[in-house]
Amino acid sequence: MAATNVKIIGAWPSPYAMRPRIALNLKNVDYEYIEETFAPTSELLLKSNPVHKKVPVMIHNDQPICESLVILQYIDEVFTSGSSLLPSDPYDRAIARFWATYIDNTWYSSVLGIVKALIEEEKATTSEGISITAGLALLEKAFEKISKGKGFFGGETIGYVDVALGSCLGWIRVAETLSGSNYIDETITPGLNAWADRFSSDDAVKDLIPDTQMLLGFALRRFGSPAK
Amino acid sequence: MAATNVKIIGAWPSPYAMRPRIALNLKNVDYEYIEETFAPTSELLLKSNPVHKKVPVMIHNDQPICESLVILQYIDEVFTSGSSLLPSDPYDRAIARFWATYIDNTWYSSVLGIVKALIEEEKATTSEGISITAGLALLEKAFEKISKGKGFFGGETIGYVDVALGSCLGWIRVAETLSGSNYIDETITPGLNAWADRFSSDDAVKDLIPDTQMLLGFALRRFGSPAK
Repeated sequence: MAATNVKIIGAWPSPYAMRPRIALNLKNVDYEYIEETFAPTSELLLKSNPVHKKVPVMIHNDQPICESLVILQYIDEVFTSGSSLLPSDPYDRAIARFWATYIDNTWYSSVLGIVKALIEEEKATTSEGISITAGLALLEKAFEKISKGKGFFGGETIGYVDVALGSCLGWIRVAETLSGSNYIDETITPGLNAWADRFSSDDAVKDLIPDTQMLLGFALRRFGSPAK
Repeated sequence: MAATNVKIIGAWPSPYAMRPRIALNLKNVDYEYIEETFAPTSELLLKSNPVHKKVPVMIHNDQPICESLVILQYIDEVFTSGSSLLPSDPYDRAIARFWATYIDNTWYSSVLGIVKALIEEEKATTSEGISITAGLALLEKAFEKISKGKGFFGGETIGYVDVALGSCLGWIRVAETLSGSNYIDETITPGLNAWADRFSSDDAVKDLIPDTQMLLGFALRRFGSPAK
């Protein structure tokens, strides 16, 4: 890997923090990974992301960049090694940005919502379950249209939307384990099901997806009541 | 203006819908404006933005683009007339994207929150008032740093963050009117105060900022209880 002055501050359960690491792996860029424990929040994180105090932060040549989707675009613009994350056509780029925004602002909160509800109330709330599957149905259609049978949202290679959605796979598996339902499988979302296998086994990704049982343990500690 | 096949579906009270119109004016691109009344939601909007059913939508050569910040980036990439909305340096671009995301995902909801609270409960909730001013204090500092004394977040000319924040000015004025407090003025936020005057009087913007009394009327109809 090329030597560069790149650091990533992340936290292992965070899908957002996984994104820049996948992108840097895809671009074959070496980086130093710093695990943030929030016990207490490190001086480095407070200094690097004073507005949100959240991971991920990428520090490149001593300059911090925050917000995972902003970091992905920065990586794509600065490191031209490897394939591009965003398509070259402006309309295709707009479509990719639209779906990444949808994943973050609309859909992913329903995944976390159902995980929290399942742990706190020991049952799924129907509306939250529906919003995960309805979102995945939209994403399945988007996948068919955008990938054009080529395997990834990015075409032949992992792109911007692949990283945005793929980083959430661990938490989808947690929600599936807790609810006993499948959200991504070969009957409901055949396209996304094959895509998820392809994404998760890619060399840039496979060592970064956290183990579902470890994530589940983290979720139980975070959302579970000690009285139960 | 250059003849182009561009349509914008908007709604006059929406700051988001103002954004592509400002950007097209800055780029000197002619467009057809279609006012969406949501009574009921038009077939064109349902077809163009089936996921969110929201304005704005830009239709360029019969292809719809949704999400105001996605549209701004598309306009910047496709129309090279006029100045660029995003800076040319990748790090500066990342900073601009960070602040635009902050405005939309963190700060602007507090403006709408206080407007709603002031109308519904006839008093401001302190925490919401604080989040507007705390956000503006951060934006004041960001303005000093990014504009480098040149007048706009974009430097000499209106850029991405200027459009993202400036489109919200009408609703800040509504919140100020309802609360009797100034959120942007020459003592609290001197940089943003002069910036707001400069932005609002620009030829690309001045005919698009809605009248505060009209917006207030809209807010009272939308959030006000008929029983009061």
